Order: sequence, then structure tokens, then C-alpha cells
Amino acid sequence: MKVLILGGGGFLGSRLAFTIANHGGLHMGHVSRLTLVDLTFPDELKKNEKFRCIATDFSEASTMQSLLEHKPDIIFHLAAVVSGEAEKNFELGMKVNFHASLQMLEICRNMDFHPRIVFASACAVFGGDVKQTITHTTGPKPRSSYGTQKAMVELLINDYSRRCFVDARSIRLPTISVRPGKPNAATSSFLSGIIREPLKGQETTYPVQDSAKFWLLSPKRVIQNFLHAANIDAGKLGEDRIITLPGITASVGEMLKSLERIAGPKVAGLATYEPDEFLQSIVLTWPHYFNCSVAESLGFVKDKSVDELILNYIQEENIQLPKL
Amino acid sequence: MKVLILGGGGFLGSRLAFTIANHGGLHMGHVSRLTLVDLTFPDELKKNEKFRCIATDFSEASTMQSLLEHKPDIIFHLAAVVSGEAEKNFELGMKVNFHASLQMLEICRNMDFHPRIVFASACAVFGGDVKQTITHTTGPKPRSSYGTQKAMVELLINDYSRRCFVDARSIRLPTISVRPGKPNAATSSFLSGIIREPLKGQETTYPVQDSAKFWLLSPKRVIQNFLHAANIDAGKLGEDRIITLPGITASVGEMLKSLERIAGPKVAGLATYEPDEFLQSIVLTWPHYFNCSVAESLGFVKDKSVDELILNYIQEENIQLPKL
Repeated sequence: MKVLILGGGGFLGSRLAFTIANHGGLHMGHVSRLTLVDLTFPDELKKNEKFRCIATDFSEASTMQSLLEHKPDIIFHLAAVVSGEAEKNFELGMKVNFHASLQMLEICRNMDFHPRIVFASACAVFGGDVKQTITHTTGPKPRSSYGTQKAMVELLINDYSRRCFVDARSIRLPTISVRPGKPNAATSSFLSGIIREPLKGQETTYPVQDSAKFWLLSPKRVIQNFLHAANIDAGKLGEDRIITLPGITASVGEMLKSLERIAGPKVAGLATYEPDEFLQSIVLTWPHYFNCSVAESLGFVKDKSVDELILNYIQEENIQLPKL
Repeated sequence: MKVLILGGGGFLGSRLAFTIANHGGLHMGHVSRLTLVDLTFPDELKKNEKFRCIATDFSEASTMQSLLEHKPDIIFHLAAVVSGEAEKNFELGMKVNFHASLQMLEICRNMDFHPRIVFASACAVFGGDVKQTITHTTGPKPRSSYGTQKAMVELLINDYSRRCFVDARSIRLPTISVRPGKPNAATSSFLSGIIREPLKGQETTYPVQDSAKFWLLSPKRVIQNFLHAANIDAGKLGEDRIITLPGITASVGEMLKSLERIAGPKVAGLATYEPDEFLQSIVLTWPHYFNCSVAESLGFVKDKSVDELILNYIQEENIQLPKL
């Protein structure tokens, strides 16, 4: 069975690749080829014989065509221009987040092969009344171009699947926290930074008030959910292939309280409030109360608490608590 | 003020054009030019000096560019490949219903002019649980390619408006009944046919059981709503530019009962049930209970009853009841 990961050089993509290579987890068959596509790759991936890494811009139509010519059985599509960048560079966002995804679906349709596709959508498709509780019937009301582009691809995925051109499913990711590594251009980047940087003994800032709430999921759980999305029978999903992933609601203040419990007040105190109007204009439009009973009944999983989310990060990344 | 009607040769487009030309109704200014675009035009439009009729395929990019070069102040975008046709010819539906609309928005953005746009979307964006009550927060769950394409354009319109590239609004049309003229390829065509053909003394069929319910609006009211959508201040709409139009819920049986009250049992008896699986597979997925309090509070209007809907048709089209 051939597996293709678009965005395989990124944090979630590479973690998914290592999980599949080292622990399996895909029920459709034995993985004979694991191809990763991204603009660039870290050395640990490039040098690893388990992976076939292709450094290319998949948003070029001819590139996508050649990538799909070996007819992967499963495609994980995690590649995106992140929310902050898509807001600042409208054309790039449309090209990568929307047109390249349409291109992928069109090539599958024209080649008449029917891969299983797991598309990483985002809870950023929601916006507007942030105090509403999102359920599986709530409509996307994006307040960003990124969310708009994701919501459009979700619609395509439902229609292409309904017509049996592909067998795809979209999973809407909560904000993923704690991401290791460096801050990125995602508008939600600070929701990892306020845990990650203090745990390095470094100062950091957050652009919203302590009371601002978000919908969170750990890297560990999102990888489990990616695999589950690939494994679940189409018949169980029905005609609606969009799954809003479970998560936990927490405020910035609650996240810092949890960090304080785990690493002490001096560490937690390294994160301070520094308002940023641009970031506020986007992230404060994201609803943070969700009822994901449908997703949970389908077997998708979440973290138990913010403490678990932080402790998992410390354990997985082998973090030594700073001595302050 | 220049007004452009895409789909101006069709039933609703030409009716809108005549209304504007003969009765005004646009508050933004005096109409100095009224351009209609469609593949073909009836003579009554072509020969009318009030209109500039351009017979062309606007879904070609270069055509759209030349149409927008005179920078219309208001664009009514009513042109579409109808639901049945878009289901049977996927590529044509995507080209006309989706790509041409994106093209229109892109040209406006690139030319840096900011027309007011009224886009005719459709309640066919909804699907699935037909017994649910649709509100302004319910998400589109199209069960047709037509509905998918409309829902995607709605998302684009919200994002392009939010970014001030255009000042657009989408109105979701209920099934329009009674349409004069001939049956068309819309899957809902029979919902006009069961009134129109018997009133000509002609037999006709409908593909669903009498109990099947639909969400209806008369041509008269939809034209009022098009004008209102063009007149309403952007500030009143807020960030969500999608309006699900009010309508009335009626079953096929109720429509025929109303026809019987108005034209007698022999006329109503000319419409008979003849199941059609293809049509059922689409129209029976359309929800028919709507709460449109938001649209009504914004001033959008509906018919009072099925009787009014039929009597309006008889009056407007100057129908003589058949003597059976």
C-alpha cells in the first residue's frame, strides 16, 4: 500500500510519517511506500531510508500530476499556507490552500483512481459569535481567508466523495498545542509559545487577554485522529465527510495556571500579555465551545486536561524543567 | 449608475430587468445603463431599447474581463447551470457555477473597483436531515454538485466582501414557483409544472409523493428580494453576507389542493404522480422547514399562502382558466 503525505516535512506531517513508519496504525494494508512531499525537509527525514522525500511545490499543477501518477492508496493532505500568512498574502493562500486541493481532486477524478484522502481542515472555518456552541450542524462562518479556503475544500471533498470520485474525509483541527520548535506564522502560534518558551526558560508574549478561550488538542491526539480518519469505514461516515475533532476549552490564563502547577510560578511568569490588534482581529473570532459528540461516537479522541497536554509535551520532547 | 445582470436572458433575469427599467427600485442612483448578459435572449429583450443585450458565454475568462471593463456599479449574478444539469455534467457545473463566479470576483479585485454584487444562491445548499429546521446558523450540507458550487461561491463572497474587494451579498432562493414558460432542467421544475400545465389544460406529472414538502417563493417576491438585497446597507448585514430568503412550506398535495380551490378538481387532476428515482434522489434531500427571522427582520419578504402564489401567477401571466 502506497501512502502519500502532502506537507510531510512539517511538524504534524513528519510526526505522522514517523508514527506510521515505526508503529504502523493504518488498517487498510501493509505500507510498502511512504512518500513525503514538502517545500523543504529536516535532515532527520531526508536521511531516513523509510521515507521517500520529494522537495517540491505541489501547488504547481504539473507537480501534482506527477505526484499522483504512482496512485497512492492513502493521501494525507496536511499542507497549507497558515492562517496569518493566508490573511496577508491572499493570492498565495488561494493558490496553495484552495486551488492545489482542487487540483488534487481533479487529477484523481480524471485519472479515475479513488484514493482514500484525509484532509486537514481547521476549526478556523468557524467565526462570528464566539460564545455559541458549535455542533455538527453549525455552519462554517470563517472570518479569515484561511478559514474560507478550508471550508471550500471541505465542500469539494464532500461532493467528490458523494460522486465516488475519491473516498475523502475532512478533519477540522482545533488549535494544536504544544507544538515543539520555533514560532510560526500561524495566528495561533502563541498558544504553543506560552508553554514552550517558558519551559526553555525564555520570555514570551501573548496577544490576547488571559480570559480569552481557545479550543485545543495535543499533537499526540491529533496524530491518533489522523490515523483513525484514514481507518474509518466510509459507510460509518455517511454523506457528510466533515468531522470537527474533539478538544478541550481553555483560556490563556488556565493554560498558564497549569504551567505554574507543573513548572512553578517563575516559569509561568515568563509569558506576558502584549496586545496585537492584527492577531486579536482573527483569533478572537474563533468559537471555543464545541459539542463533538458525533465525532466522539465515531471514535475520535481528545486530551483530558490542559495538564495532560503540557505533561505529554514535556515527556515526548524530553524537556528538562528550567531552574529559575 | 451602470447595472449588469448576468443571466439577464433567463426568466428571473429578464423579469428583474423589466422591473428596473419600468419601475425603478434601486436606491443607489439613476440607472443610466442596463446591460444583460446571457447565452441567448428572447426577442422582447433584444428589441427593447432600454436594454443592452450581450449574447455571450460569460464563463470564458476573457469574456468576463471585457464585461467588467465598463465597471458596473451593481452586478446581479443570476446565471447558473441548473441543478439537474450540474449533476449530470459535473465539469460544466463547476465551470459556470463556480469558476466563472470566482473569475468575476478576481477581476473585480484585480481591477480594484468595488461593485455591489447580488449573487443568486439557492436553498439547495442544504441537505441531509430534511426534517430539521434551518436557521441562519445552520451549515450548508449540499447533496448535489449544484448546491456545493453555490455554497462555495457564498464563502468566496463573504471573504471578498470582508476584505473589501467587493460589496457582495448572497441570497439563497427557495424553489421559485410558479415559473411561466416551459419545463427546464432544474430538478425542481415540476414544482412549477404541476400548477402551470394544468392551468393550460394539459396533463403533467410529478416525481415525488403528494406528501413531499418544499420551500417555495413566487417570482414576484423573489424580484422584490433581489432589489432589496441590492439596496440594503452593508452595515446592516454585518460580516455574514448570506441571506436565506423567507418562503412558505407546502407539500405537493397542498399545492394541488390549492389549485383545486382556484381552478376546480378537473384541472388539479391533470397532475399525476409518476416516480422518478433520479429526481427523488436530489429533491427529497432538501430541507423544507426554515426559520428566516433574521432575513425577515432585514426586510426580505415572502408570500402569504400557496393560494396567493397561484393567484399571482394567474394575474401576472394573464391566464384564462381552462374549461374542463
